[in-house]
Amino acid sequence: MAKLEFDTYGKTKVRLMHVRRHRRGHEVREISVTVLFEGDFEIAFSEGDNSLVLPTDTMKNTVYVIARESRWSSIEELARALARHFLERLEHLERVIIEIEEVPWARIGDHATAFVQSGSERRYTKLAATPLIETFIAGIKGLQILKTANSAFSGFLRDEFTTLLETQDRLLGTVLEAEWTYAADGLTDEFAFNEVHEEIGRILLDSFAYHHSQSVQQTLFTMGQAVLDQVDTVLDIHLVMPNKHCLLVDLARFGLDNPNEVFVPTDEPSGYIEARMTR
Amino acid sequence: MAKLEFDTYGKTKVRLMHVRRHRRGHEVREISVTVLFEGDFEIAFSEGDNSLVLPTDTMKNTVYVIARESRWSSIEELARALARHFLERLEHLERVIIEIEEVPWARIGDHATAFVQSGSERRYTKLAATPLIETFIAGIKGLQILKTANSAFSGFLRDEFTTLLETQDRLLGTVLEAEWTYAADGLTDEFAFNEVHEEIGRILLDSFAYHHSQSVQQTLFTMGQAVLDQVDTVLDIHLVMPNKHCLLVDLARFGLDNPNEVFVPTDEPSGYIEARMTR
Amino acid sequence: MAKLEFDTYGKTKVRLMHVRRHRRGHEVREISVTVLFEGDFEIAFSEGDNSLVLPTDTMKNTVYVIARESRWSSIEELARALARHFLERLEHLERVIIEIEEVPWARIGDHATAFVQSGSERRYTKLAATPLIETFIAGIKGLQILKTANSAFSGFLRDEFTTLLETQDRLLGTVLEAEWTYAADGLTDEFAFNEVHEEIGRILLDSFAYHHSQSVQQTLFTMGQAVLDQVDTVLDIHLVMPNKHCLLVDLARFGLDNPNEVFVPTDEPSGYIEARMTR
Amino acid sequence: MAKLEFDTYGKTKVRLMHVRRHRRGHEVREISVTVLFEGDFEIAFSEGDNSLVLPTDTMKNTVYVIARESRWSSIEELARALARHFLERLEHLERVIIEIEEVPWARIGDHATAFVQSGSERRYTKLAATPLIETFIAGIKGLQILKTANSAFSGFLRDEFTTLLETQDRLLGTVLEAEWTYAADGLTDEFAFNEVHEEIGRILLDSFAYHHSQSVQQTLFTMGQAVLDQVDTVLDIHLVMPNKHCLLVDLARFGLDNPNEVFVPTDEPSGYIEARMTR
Repeated sequence: MAKLEFDTYGKTKVRLMHVRRHRRGHEVREISVTVLFEGDFEIAFSEGDNSLVLPTDTMKNTVYVIARESRWSSIEELARALARHFLERLEHLERVIIEIEEVPWARIGDHATAFVQSGSERRYTKLAATPLIETFIAGIKGLQILKTANSAFSGFLRDEFTTLLETQDRLLGTVLEAEWTYAADGLTDEFAFNEVHEEIGRILLDSFAYHHSQSVQQTLFTMGQAVLDQVDTVLDIHLVMPNKHCLLVDLARFGLDNPNEVFVPTDEPSGYIEARMTR
Repeated sequence: MAKLEFDTYGKTKVRLMHVRRHRRGHEVREISVTVLFEGDFEIAFSEGDNSLVLPTDTMKNTVYVIARESRWSSIEELARALARHFLERLEHLERVIIEIEEVPWARIGDHATAFVQSGSERRYTKLAATPLIETFIAGIKGLQILKTANSAFSGFLRDEFTTLLETQDRLLGTVLEAEWTYAADGLTDEFAFNEVHEEIGRILLDSFAYHHSQSVQQTLFTMGQAVLDQVDTVLDIHLVMPNKHCLLVDLARFGLDNPNEVFVPTDEPSGYIEARMTR
Repeated sequence: MAKLEFDTYGKTKVRLMHVRRHRRGHEVREISVTVLFEGDFEIAFSEGDNSLVLPTDTMKNTVYVIARESRWSSIEELARALARHFLERLEHLERVIIEIEEVPWARIGDHATAFVQSGSERRYTKLAATPLIETFIAGIKGLQILKTANSAFSGFLRDEFTTLLETQDRLLGTVLEAEWTYAADGLTDEFAFNEVHEEIGRILLDSFAYHHSQSVQQTLFTMGQAVLDQVDTVLDIHLVMPNKHCLLVDLARFGLDNPNEVFVPTDEPSGYIEARMTR
Repeated sequence: MAKLEFDTYGKTKVRLMHVRRHRRGHEVREISVTVLFEGDFEIAFSEGDNSLVLPTDTMKNTVYVIARESRWSSIEELARALARHFLERLEHLERVIIEIEEVPWARIGDHATAFVQSGSERRYTKLAATPLIETFIAGIKGLQILKTANSAFSGFLRDEFTTLLETQDRLLGTVLEAEWTYAADGLTDEFAFNEVHEEIGRILLDSFAYHHSQSVQQTLFTMGQAVLDQVDTVLDIHLVMPNKHCLLVDLARFGLDNPNEVFVPTDEPSGYIEARMTR
């Protein structure tokens, strides 16, 4: 008989549009929720005995119910309410993972009840909860950013297959994915998840914009360090920054110069830089 | 021998990042260009004679060259420069189509050389040019918008397969695709394509936001009419508004009410409304 | 008041998995259906009067009902049953468009009730039906095909921006989209849509494989002509063949030859060839 | 100063079309390669010192060179050649990760030089190599499979939010992702990666097809066990099987029965089952 080393099951992509109707205007949150259970499920796998398996369809219904019943204004608070709900009821659970991703919506002008999707980036959270401890990861992904100055890449290692030219002035574009862990002891039930998330987003953008870059690696490190320096409640930060290359077009073939004006953006191949940092 | 009723060829997805370096800050335009030729190409198809076929690779090179050489600040101006370039040189062309799509970038704060992609919508233009006439279509697509109030749907036709309930208060969400034709006589070489495009975008959003909707059809009509009323240079407007349904969750099964708070957004199936309007 | 030049509405992406349970084994068809109405809908747009608007939700229900009730073994037959259903009941319809796309599934070995999705291409049909006439378009899209020999491109037009080298031996890859119109007089209710579709698919593949190509244009023409030559019931055929370039890698920089062995496949930019042919 | 807990960098999506020209016919492999380096790169991150950073552009060139120079007929062999190349030359590397994904192509009929892409699934490998040890993971993803019989789900845990009905006869569809680790001691340089991969794929499909399923969990376990039972060189296997629900349509509302014939396939929400198994 084979042995289970790890197993989990759950429901993914439970989508929800939540409308809070204040007198002065509506507030909308569009989210997608994942619920995963870990625990005593071996007989479900090995024997087809479902007696401890709460259907994933029930997880979905529960997401709808808790989204209506609990008080929440951040995806982290909703994740916490969901995790606590399941852990309180189901003793055979060892760990519950709740992941929530949020689509950004902004008002059209200052209209109270009309909205426009305001970016292709996504804010998300991943809560890993046991009966004893809750670990909150928060992050942002799909944030496309670009520097048109203050980016160099030179002094690198060369071998006989190296054809890349050194440059003091290139475009640096990436699709940022940043996630960080919140220190558990700071996370009271009143922790201001939305405000802190917004602040971290601003720090990441600012440090990207104002950094004089010698490489994507250095820019990544600078951004992570800025967050660790300025936000006490962040325990560690993990950054992924693919290098979405913009290649300068050779126009000399056609008797023209190209003073860093016309580039070809490429999706593949793509550089890839990743690091996790702590204090 | 088979007969060609229609044929075209060209290059699609020629991507370009264009950086204009002003003293006070940079300006970036990320675009994707399509070039299509129509004309005397029958022997290429029927006999494999390529003597009149300019390679699509050359079209690509030409996009880079013209993007560097010509003066342009809007995608429409670049499209015009490209179309005129090809028509002036190649007498066997009957028509050139230039399509350009632009990715929106905005400054990070007020930083001069750092940018963030600012939306998932895309501005585009389609220029159809012959030696005698240039027809400019401009548009926007992928603009996700949502009304959380002032949207009803009732009084509709019913048959025995109709189970939809009438409603005076639903969510109305769509992914707007709008395109319009500019009147040829208004299009001097100094026409302010960027400003007019921005104004039309604002009119579409405002009329969507402030309309009391009886149906997607009526909202679409109202939006088109607002553009035709307020922008003289628009000859006709074509709108596509899929109805991205948000379904109210039935929580009564669980002993809860749901006063238009928790919805499930769905991508499929999707309603579909389309119309083209003139004065 | 603005004037409607064209309008339509309907439901898209009504997905369906249809299982026919024969004694010797099951048969599955996974399809996605679009229903579009054209007709007397002006007051819905201009006045918000929905009295002639059958909800798109009802169209969806009707797709489920007709898929169960009618006898069909091809997507064309189901499209016909749907169009006739709507036209018989709703006198204010001028035209109904039914589009159906089918995902290919094949048996796992010869197992009677287990299946594997067997390709990324999609078969589809578009039926445009009025009370007087039914026009059937059938097609296939997303069919990725590749020739590694017998493909040249030379003798083309050159200008000062042409850098492409002539070649007698290149890779020719495309993502075929082919659609054809069936002659109305051949379309009895017993027309063997599935068999004819399969035959046309085979002809397209064979003529692509065995053709000595001077250009994508010539290959496209040859494929279209083969269908028109061999299938009487096809009235016209429309082919779209983007040129998915595979670029030979320059290894001479590294002291190596590259005898047409290592290529870089690229998605963008992409050549584009399109034609519609009749007899 | 922040501390790096983990870092890596490299090149992703290096695409390659490799054509081997045998006398009796060509053989094509379309692959996408990722190269990742781990090692002594801290000063690149913290100080912008690139002296130990081989450019990712050089990794790309190296992929082309090794694909031409080395003898390989499986993606695993190419991965091994790449990893050894880098580890032999760069002493500051602690670990190299090579990931290769392959697009399936099959001949058109028995034509020697014409091919059709034969599925949407992808075979892949992930090689983690240090100077001392090579760990090969192989897998397949995107394989869409469906059972229309012999699938039940009943006897599950219920709470007050459970509305799912028990069933003895449902559709069971999934998009299989399977990956396994090869036992290091079996991996001589002559190991038949292609043949073993093909055998494992066949075992997975057969056990899926012939299993009488009480749940996705049990089916997953059965499939993993079949591989472990029949293929000695597999050390462990990891399976991910999202439950792509097909919902039976309620036609009773319209006076019709629906004897497991008409279903709605849905992409979201989606069940999710994952496990890793050893002997």
